[in-house]
Amino acid sequence: MTNLMSRDELEAALRAIGAERYHSLHPFHKKLHGGELNKGQVQAWALNRYCYQAAIPRKDAALMARTTCRELRREWIHRIQDHDGDGIEEEGGIERWLALTTGLGIDPEIVISTKQALPATVHAVEEYVEYVKRGPMVQAVASSLTELFAPKIHEERISGMLENYDFIDESVMKYFRRRLNQAPRDANFALKYVLEHADTIDLQQKALEALTFKCNVLWAQLDALYFAYFEPGLIPPGAFRPQET
Amino acid sequence: MTNLMSRDELEAALRAIGAERYHSLHPFHKKLHGGELNKGQVQAWALNRYCYQAAIPRKDAALMARTTCRELRREWIHRIQDHDGDGIEEEGGIERWLALTTGLGIDPEIVISTKQALPATVHAVEEYVEYVKRGPMVQAVASSLTELFAPKIHEERISGMLENYDFIDESVMKYFRRRLNQAPRDANFALKYVLEHADTIDLQQKALEALTFKCNVLWAQLDALYFAYFEPGLIPPGAFRPQET
Repeated sequence: MTNLMSRDELEAALRAIGAERYHSLHPFHKKLHGGELNKGQVQAWALNRYCYQAAIPRKDAALMARTTCRELRREWIHRIQDHDGDGIEEEGGIERWLALTTGLGIDPEIVISTKQALPATVHAVEEYVEYVKRGPMVQAVASSLTELFAPKIHEERISGMLENYDFIDESVMKYFRRRLNQAPRDANFALKYVLEHADTIDLQQKALEALTFKCNVLWAQLDALYFAYFEPGLIPPGAFRPQET
Repeated sequence: MTNLMSRDELEAALRAIGAERYHSLHPFHKKLHGGELNKGQVQAWALNRYCYQAAIPRKDAALMARTTCRELRREWIHRIQDHDGDGIEEEGGIERWLALTTGLGIDPEIVISTKQALPATVHAVEEYVEYVKRGPMVQAVASSLTELFAPKIHEERISGMLENYDFIDESVMKYFRRRLNQAPRDANFALKYVLEHADTIDLQQKALEALTFKCNVLWAQLDALYFAYFEPGLIPPGAFRPQET
């Protein structure tokens, strides 16, 4: 029988999910950061991950569309701005991700079309967008809490990729540098919101489920990359086929 | 049999809908601007209209959640900011509307709860939020085009209400002053988008339908106000009952 947790207990339970399930633990990430992939495999990762990046503002707008709480919307809108930029002064995370894929030598039109992404990537990403439209708000908000664990993976990625790949330089890593500051700000707000609003056993369970769901969204993308581009290397019909190894 | 219209023809057809159906033509508005209402009736109008104002950011976020077009999102996000404000420097349209209802002597808690709004108001407003989630994007965007006709009504309202009611002063009319600039900017972008993207007979018809739908959303709110608070004056159970006449 589950009991109502204190805020500290709930936070610990949320963090425990990350410790067990965050995609930093996935073998594909270890290979990515450790320099064990060839350029084509890194391209495939960046092209697929673009789908996720590009969908985030839709996910965040869908979440905002549900709430009558102006304070929540006022805070959440920063996420859309961070990703979309304003087209004038601030390029935004999606554009920074395109700097990475272009730096890796992939035609941006192919990336933006998302037509060569793996089906499992698209499914995971679109299911995430739909997920935040359902269930209680605290569940939708809790699904963003993977950002609690993001700074560490970004740091590993920046140092690991710069060190291990001669086709990666500082100029294409600006997405991750920027997220080092943005993700903790967003995560802190969302964590506070969840700890405050998950005030029943049911809502606490839903918050934990949401974070598990989201870890799965990230994990499944790496499973699909591993399967298609590493081992056994079965690229689905129509998916991106690297020219470089 | 309908033919594909030129851009000019489509614009003219859209404007013709406003000329026939925009709520500036509604008898309740004429009475409101003309000083024919008592304070309780103006309160009822402001309290009900708050529901609409407060729902607009949800509607705009719902529209943004549908589009993969970053340029459209970058432009549309201003609408949410205009209404929600940032809680720091910019108070936003919803807060400016609350200045009006508070200036009219209604407890803001009652207004914000929307519990005393007319059922027809809530139905119209929530149906508008849902409408932009359906059909082609150009239809969703076209539903915002009532803003093409807004400046004129705002001007009439500012001068008419200041002149005709001793319980209205400049300080509570700031919502309308601000919209004199915001509405045309938004409407121009949306009109350009619709003229560009409604490039089939079917999409042109859907754009015209969307604007008609939206005129009806506004019109139905005034019908309900007229019926409940003017003639025959049948206030539904639970709805706001003015104390002042």
